[in-house]
Amino acid sequence: MENCKRIGKVITVAFVFLSISMLKAILFDMGSTLVIDIGLRKNFVEAMHKLLKNHINIDRAKIELLFDEWDHITYREGLEEYWDLFRSMILLKKLGLKPSPLLVEEVYETIVNVWVESYVFEEGVVRTVKELKNLGYQIGIISNTGSHDSVYREIKRAGLTHFIDVIITSQAVGWKKPSPKIFKITLDMIGVKPEQAVHVGDDPIADVEGAKKAGLWAVQKMKKGEKVSPYADAVVYKIVEIPKVLEELLRRHS
Amino acid sequence: MENCKRIGKVITVAFVFLSISMLKAILFDMGSTLVIDIGLRKNFVEAMHKLLKNHINIDRAKIELLFDEWDHITYREGLEEYWDLFRSMILLKKLGLKPSPLLVEEVYETIVNVWVESYVFEEGVVRTVKELKNLGYQIGIISNTGSHDSVYREIKRAGLTHFIDVIITSQAVGWKKPSPKIFKITLDMIGVKPEQAVHVGDDPIADVEGAKKAGLWAVQKMKKGEKVSPYADAVVYKIVEIPKVLEELLRRHS
Repeated sequence: MENCKRIGKVITVAFVFLSISMLKAILFDMGSTLVIDIGLRKNFVEAMHKLLKNHINIDRAKIELLFDEWDHITYREGLEEYWDLFRSMILLKKLGLKPSPLLVEEVYETIVNVWVESYVFEEGVVRTVKELKNLGYQIGIISNTGSHDSVYREIKRAGLTHFIDVIITSQAVGWKKPSPKIFKITLDMIGVKPEQAVHVGDDPIADVEGAKKAGLWAVQKMKKGEKVSPYADAVVYKIVEIPKVLEELLRRHS
Repeated sequence: MENCKRIGKVITVAFVFLSISMLKAILFDMGSTLVIDIGLRKNFVEAMHKLLKNHINIDRAKIELLFDEWDHITYREGLEEYWDLFRSMILLKKLGLKPSPLLVEEVYETIVNVWVESYVFEEGVVRTVKELKNLGYQIGIISNTGSHDSVYREIKRAGLTHFIDVIITSQAVGWKKPSPKIFKITLDMIGVKPEQAVHVGDDPIADVEGAKKAGLWAVQKMKKGEKVSPYADAVVYKIVEIPKVLEELLRRHS
């Protein structure tokens, strides 16, 4: 019996060592992880007010209310996601406007533009991603967003297209983090096993608990006032710390 | 008892009359209803072969197989829909290629272009839609498609943007016909009750049975070799017949 336990322990340690030494992919959340918000709410309200005042008599306060509701505008429950184009229709309807094809396109374009303008890459992110890619890791993005376009445009603008192996958004696949499905889809796409991948993100539930429960290593990007998740294998305050944290993880398990 | 039956019948007739006289919206399916296929399969295989041969050694037969599988490429079951961008990723993966962001965008763009080039409006459709709009009906599109963009681009190219009140695609909302949800979403968007709307489509299950079960009037656009659905309120062979068929429906129930 004692022998069995010891063998079990040896196997576990060997497995962890094997896993971590075979670390193949680093997956990143997008919003508040790679990119930071420099005024989304303000820009959204201003742009929508400018666009919609041609159609209805509307005050900013009403648009502010709708912005706060934006992530909750969905017919579906739980871990599924809607496309921002459909959210735009629902928003127009809530404002008492008919979601005519042209107006829907205008609202959707406005929202994507606002998103792309309002998020900028945190200092050092572009350099760090290139560094990790050059170290031989596969790099992926897993983002909860209603607009895949926005994420792609951000990546393209930063010149990172050739350094990223896969972009998976909840809009594209339907499922949101913390659903294990979105992590599984991402790993399947790049042919990597969960234990060969690290996920980095700021949301304790969606990113840290979600990744861990899907079998990946989880690194929590800390934000002001947030507690360390019990699921976090490590924490960082800035993305530039990631290569060092990966080294530490490898050392800790070797 | 006999009296009750008679009263019931009178109420039913009155209700039907009221409903049909309050006909407010005509909803159309897109593919094989408003637009007809002039070479999608051939164009798809050619365009994809041209694009992918720069990346892998691939023959047309393999792409043909994938094209035939295209509508079935989905992780989800039943009446839900995926976006063609995600289908493009799955297709690349099936071909043994990594779905890198740039390649995915190229494949998706190619597929949307092929779709838009391969479907043309049936003769008289543009004129008929304008005529129905001028008669005071609200006009909607409900299309089962993985690319909302394609439908919008077709409508725009035909100069119909201002004649159509709403475009609902299964990609935008997640649900596919015959799900009653997609019909309900469409009607909610334009503020019309099911009994105030007619849906016109070629698919006996998705369009005719689906619309009828969702409480709408159903007109079947006949195609070669197809039987008349027991759910059809009327049939047409060409879209130009629609105004006449609506008159007949109104007369029959008045």
